[in-house]
Amino acid sequence: MPLGQRPGDKSESRYCGVETEFHDDMPHLLTESLSGGFDFIVAPLIDPSYRPSSTSNGGSGSLVLPVAASDLILSPSQWSSHVVGKISSWIDLDSDDEKVRLDSEITLKQEIAWASHLSLQACILPPPRRASCGNYAKCVNQILQSTNNMQLWLRVPLEKSEPMDDGSANANSDFSGGRMFDSWEWWNSFRLLCEHHSQLCVVLDILSSLPSNNSIGRWFGEPVRAAVIYTNSFLTNARGYPCLSKRHQKLITEFFNHSVQIVISGGLLHNISGESIKALPANDDDSHLEVMPTRHALRPYLDYIAYLYQRMDPLPEQERFELGYRDFLQSPLQPLMDNLEAQTYETFEKDIVKYSQYQRAVCKALIDRVPDENASTKIMVLMVVGAGRGPLVRASLQAAEETGRKLKVYAVEKNPNAVITLHSLVKLEGWEDIVTIISSDMRCWNAPEKADILVSELLGSFGDNELSPECLDGAQTFLKADGISIPSSYTSFIQPVTATKLYNDVKSHKDLAHFETAYVVKLHRVARLAPSQPVFTFTHPEYSKKSNERYKKLCFEIPSDSGSAVVHGFAGYFDATLYKDVHLGIEPSTATPNMFSWFPIFFPLRTPLFVPTGSPLEVHFWRCSSASKVWYEWCVTSPTTSPVHNSNGRSYWVGL
Amino acid sequence: MPLGQRPGDKSESRYCGVETEFHDDMPHLLTESLSGGFDFIVAPLIDPSYRPSSTSNGGSGSLVLPVAASDLILSPSQWSSHVVGKISSWIDLDSDDEKVRLDSEITLKQEIAWASHLSLQACILPPPRRASCGNYAKCVNQILQSTNNMQLWLRVPLEKSEPMDDGSANANSDFSGGRMFDSWEWWNSFRLLCEHHSQLCVVLDILSSLPSNNSIGRWFGEPVRAAVIYTNSFLTNARGYPCLSKRHQKLITEFFNHSVQIVISGGLLHNISGESIKALPANDDDSHLEVMPTRHALRPYLDYIAYLYQRMDPLPEQERFELGYRDFLQSPLQPLMDNLEAQTYETFEKDIVKYSQYQRAVCKALIDRVPDENASTKIMVLMVVGAGRGPLVRASLQAAEETGRKLKVYAVEKNPNAVITLHSLVKLEGWEDIVTIISSDMRCWNAPEKADILVSELLGSFGDNELSPECLDGAQTFLKADGISIPSSYTSFIQPVTATKLYNDVKSHKDLAHFETAYVVKLHRVARLAPSQPVFTFTHPEYSKKSNERYKKLCFEIPSDSGSAVVHGFAGYFDATLYKDVHLGIEPSTATPNMFSWFPIFFPLRTPLFVPTGSPLEVHFWRCSSASKVWYEWCVTSPTTSPVHNSNGRSYWVGL
Repeated sequence: MPLGQRPGDKSESRYCGVETEFHDDMPHLLTESLSGGFDFIVAPLIDPSYRPSSTSNGGSGSLVLPVAASDLILSPSQWSSHVVGKISSWIDLDSDDEKVRLDSEITLKQEIAWASHLSLQACILPPPRRASCGNYAKCVNQILQSTNNMQLWLRVPLEKSEPMDDGSANANSDFSGGRMFDSWEWWNSFRLLCEHHSQLCVVLDILSSLPSNNSIGRWFGEPVRAAVIYTNSFLTNARGYPCLSKRHQKLITEFFNHSVQIVISGGLLHNISGESIKALPANDDDSHLEVMPTRHALRPYLDYIAYLYQRMDPLPEQERFELGYRDFLQSPLQPLMDNLEAQTYETFEKDIVKYSQYQRAVCKALIDRVPDENASTKIMVLMVVGAGRGPLVRASLQAAEETGRKLKVYAVEKNPNAVITLHSLVKLEGWEDIVTIISSDMRCWNAPEKADILVSELLGSFGDNELSPECLDGAQTFLKADGISIPSSYTSFIQPVTATKLYNDVKSHKDLAHFETAYVVKLHRVARLAPSQPVFTFTHPEYSKKSNERYKKLCFEIPSDSGSAVVHGFAGYFDATLYKDVHLGIEPSTATPNMFSWFPIFFPLRTPLFVPTGSPLEVHFWRCSSASKVWYEWCVTSPTTSPVHNSNGRSYWVGL
Repeated sequence: MPLGQRPGDKSESRYCGVETEFHDDMPHLLTESLSGGFDFIVAPLIDPSYRPSSTSNGGSGSLVLPVAASDLILSPSQWSSHVVGKISSWIDLDSDDEKVRLDSEITLKQEIAWASHLSLQACILPPPRRASCGNYAKCVNQILQSTNNMQLWLRVPLEKSEPMDDGSANANSDFSGGRMFDSWEWWNSFRLLCEHHSQLCVVLDILSSLPSNNSIGRWFGEPVRAAVIYTNSFLTNARGYPCLSKRHQKLITEFFNHSVQIVISGGLLHNISGESIKALPANDDDSHLEVMPTRHALRPYLDYIAYLYQRMDPLPEQERFELGYRDFLQSPLQPLMDNLEAQTYETFEKDIVKYSQYQRAVCKALIDRVPDENASTKIMVLMVVGAGRGPLVRASLQAAEETGRKLKVYAVEKNPNAVITLHSLVKLEGWEDIVTIISSDMRCWNAPEKADILVSELLGSFGDNELSPECLDGAQTFLKADGISIPSSYTSFIQPVTATKLYNDVKSHKDLAHFETAYVVKLHRVARLAPSQPVFTFTHPEYSKKSNERYKKLCFEIPSDSGSAVVHGFAGYFDATLYKDVHLGIEPSTATPNMFSWFPIFFPLRTPLFVPTGSPLEVHFWRCSSASKVWYEWCVTSPTTSPVHNSNGRSYWVGL
C-alpha cells in the first residue's frame, strides 16, 4: 500500500519495495511482502546458482530454466504489478575469462527474455564489475534495441571518493590501484554506449556514507527510478527504532520529490519490543492472495520511510498546477508573428504577482515625475504598448488612483481580436475619458503626442527572445526626451544543466532542427551544474543607435566536489528592472516568488558534453538579426568544441 | 604554367602560386606574375588600410570600396582562373574591443561577398589572432552556410611547440603565458565549430623550422589546399641558388602527392648572377595579357620548386590505375547474397601476384603431403570452394604441374553464371579428366568423397567480412581428418585515422545508417595515427565448435610527438596465411606488394573523436551473428565514450 497521500501528487515515489533473495515459491514471497505493507518486490527470476555452460547443450536446448515461478503460477498482471526482476548478480560480461563472459551473455539474454515474457515493467541490471564495461553495455544496448517497453535499471552505488580525502579509493569499490572512483562516471559511460536509450534507467544503492551534495545533485538530472536503502544504513533512535541521518532524510525527501521509488534491503537489525507494533490492515488490492498474519520483519524500516513521506509539506497550489508541465518541452510563443488566443491572454492575466509589480513600478514612477503639489493638475501621458486585453492598463490606472496622479492612457495593440476585448473593457469600466485604444503595431504607429511613460510586457523566458528590444526601439520614437520605459532594462541568464529527460525528448525527433531550437519548459528532473551568469542586457530607451545584435562568451566552473558531469544544454532565465528597485524575473537566485507567467527556456546541445572534474566550461551565445528575423546561435569551445548551433537561424528563429 | 608533367597525374599540385601585396592595378600584377611563370596569385582584393567604421555610413551606404580591380577591368574568368583572394589580415573577430570586432565582421562579410561576386574559386582567411576564435568561426560558419561554391581556406602556420623543448612556447606565436602551441588544434577547433564544412579548407604557412614528422603527418588527413613557402625558408647552395633542407624537400614532395599547391611568398633574398638565367617562354594561355619582358624576381624559387616536382618518380602503373579510386567510398561486396558480374571476375582475375601466392602455397602443400616417391601414383583431392570463373583451379593445376604431383580437382561454385564460364574453360583447356564442376553452395553440397586440400579465396578487405569463416565451416565437413585449408588462417587489423574527406562524404548522406557502415576505400588523404593492431583471427579447419562471434578490446597509443589528434574512424586490413610461410595481405607493414584485389576497409565514427596528447584510445570491436546475417559493432570508451555503432546490425550487415 502507498506510503501516504499527498494532494495532487500521483508520483511513483508513493510506492515502496523490498529486495528479496531467490525463492522458488514466488507466490509465497509475494504474499508475505505485500501483506507486510510493501507495494512491490525486487527479486531474482532465475536461480543464481545456474550456469548455462554447466549444461551439455549450452543453454540453447530443451533444458527447463530454474525459475522462481512461471506465468501460470503467477499471472502476467501479478508479475507486472508487483515484481521488479533482478538479473543474476554473478554475471561479468567484461571478464577476461571467455567462458565466464559467454555464460554471462547467455544468462543476461535469457533472464531478460524471460522477464519480458512475464510483462515485467522493469528489470534491475547488476552493477558492472569492472571500470571498463564496454561488452556489458554493448549487450544491454542490443537488448534495448529489440525489447518491448520493459525498462532496464542499471544498479550502481551512490558513491564517489572525494579528492580531499586521503587519496585512497573507497573500500566499497572493487577497483585496484587506488584510482578515484565515481559511480556516476560508470553510469555515464554505460548510457553513452547505449546512446541515452530512454528505457535505460538507474537504481542507486544508498550506502551509510554519502558523497558531497554537489556530487549527489548530478543524479537529479538522470533517470533514477529507484533507490535501495539498506537496513545497515539506519541509525537507532532513543527508543530503539530505526531512523536515518539528517542527510539521508533530506536525500530520501528529494527522491520523493523526483518520483524515485524507495526499496528496502537487508535483514532486521533493530530489536524492537512487541508492544509498539500496530495492527496491520490486509492489502485490499491483493485480497485474492493468501494473507499472512505474521508481521513483516522489515516493517519498522518501512514505517520510518512512510513517516518521512507523510511529513513532507503539501505541494503549494502553484506547484500542483504546474505538475503536468514538468519537463515538458514547449515551443516559445511568437507573439509578433502570431496573434495570441483569448485563452492564452486569460491564463497570463491571472498572474497577480506580476501585475502588482507593474503597479508598484508605475506608482514609483508617477511619484517621481509628478510632485505632490502638481498631482491634481499635471496629466501624465502613459502608453501601454502591447496592451493585449488590458491588464497593464488596469494596473496603471490603479497606480494613478493609489498615488492620486492623473493619467492619459493610450493602449496600443496590434492584435485586432484583443482590440475588440479592450473596447469592451473600457466601456464596462467607464474609462472612455482616460483611455484611447489604438489598433496598430507599435513599430509603425504615428502617435499624436509624446509619452511620459511607456509600459510594456513583451518579455519572454529569456528576456529579449520575444523581440522586446525591436518593439521598444520602434515605440521609443513617441517617447518624450525625458520619458521612461517600464521595464527600464532586462538581462538574460544561462546555466549549464544535466537533463537526460529533455535530451531524450529532443532526440526523439531524429532531426537536427530540434537540437537547434530553444524550448520553454518547467525544469524539474534537472541538475543545475553551476550558478547562472548574465548573457545579454537591453536598456530602454536606447538612443545610441547600437545594434540589438549581441555576443557573449561565458566561462562556467562546476564545483570540483561535484565530480565530472555531462551537460545536455543550458537553462535560460531573465531578470527585468521595471523601475528603479522594482524588478521581476525568474533567475533562480533572485526569482520573483509565486509568479507563474514564465517557465525557463532550454537551449539543447546536439551532443551531450562531458566535462571532466575541474575543467572550465566555455560557452558562446550570439543574438543575431536580419531584416525579417532574430535568432540565437550558441556553441561550446571548452573542454571540447561543439559545432555552432543554429547557424543563420536555420532551425529556430523569431519573426519580426 | 604547370611545374611539370607527370604521366597520369592531373592533380592541382602542378600549379604554383605567388603571394602579393595589395595593388590597385591588378591587371599589371597578374600579367607580371603569370609571365613570370606562376599559375596564380594570392592577393588582397580590397585595400587593407580601409576600415568600415572610418566612414560615416558604417560601410553600408553608397561608399565605393577601394578594390584592387573590378569585374570590368578583369573578367570573372580571369579572376577565377588566376586569383585566390586574400582577406584583410588585420581583422580580429575575437577582439575585446567591440569596435574592432564589428569592423572585422563587416570587412570579412564585404570581402567574401566581393570575392564571391568575382567567382573566385577560393579566398584565404587570415590566421586567428587568439587562442579562442569562437566568434571568428561563427561568422565564417554563417558565411559558409550561404555562400556559393567558393572555398574558404583558413591560413595557419605549420607549427607546434615540442614538449621536449625548454617548455616555452614558440616565439612565432602570439600567445602569452608560455602555453603549448599547436596550430593543428586551432584548425581543429575552428572546423569543429564550422561542422566540418566541406568548403572550409586549410593553407599551411611553412616556416624555416618544421615540427616532428608525426605532428606533420596529421595534416595529411586534412583538406590542405595550399602551402605557402617563404623565401627566407630557403637555404643557399654552393652556386648561390636557393634550395631547401632535406626535410623541407620531403615535405614539399608529400604535398605534391596530396594535391597541395605551393605558393611562394616573400622578397628575393638570393643574389644570383645573370648568366644562368634561361630564356622564359611567354605563357600561351594568357597571351592576351601584356607580356612583361623582365624576369620575375622570385623565378629562382619557382625554378627550384619545379625541379622538386620534376624529379619525383613517375607514378607506378597500379597507382595510376587506382588514382580515380582514391578516397572514394564503396560498399563492400556481398558475394554470398549477390552473384558477381563477369566484369568483376575479370578485374580480380588480373591480380597476378595474388594467384602466384596461391600457386606457391599449393606447391608447398603438395610437396609436404606427397613424397617424391609417390608423386606419380598418389592422387590428391583438391576442392576449390568458390571457384568463380576458375583462376584458383588454374593456379592449383599449375602447382601440380610444377611439383609433378597428381590432382583430382572439384570446382564448387554457387553462381550459375560463373559455372557456365567454368565449363567453357575446362573444355578449352582440356581439363575434363581432372576437373569436376559442382554447381552448388559449398555450405550444403553433399560431396562424393573427402578432400585433402580445400582452396578458397573468400576473403574481404577485413578478412572475415565476406563470411569466409561461415563458408569454410560448411565446407570443412568434406575435408579429410588430416586435410588442410588454403588459407589456413587470417587476421583482421585496424588503426585509427584522421580522414576529413571520408568523414564529410559519409556525413553528406545525412543519416545514421551511413555512419554505421563499413566502406571499401583506397585510402589516400588519410593520417594514420598509430600502428595497426590485430582484431579477429580465424583458423581453418576449426573443429572446436567455437562460435564465429568475436570480441576484441584494443588500446592504441598515438605517439606523443604527434600532438592531439582527431579520429574520424578506423582503417581495416587483413593478413592471411595461405600455407606455412606463404602469406597474402594488405596490412601496411606486411602488405603483399603489387597486389590490387583489396583496398582497405573504413569503419567511421559518428562523431569525430578528439584525442588529447598522451591519452590512450580504447576501442572495442565485435563480430556478431544471427541466423540470417553477420555484422560488426564498434565503439570507443577512451578518451571519451561513443555510442555502440551498428547495434544488432541495424545499419550494415552481411547476409548469410
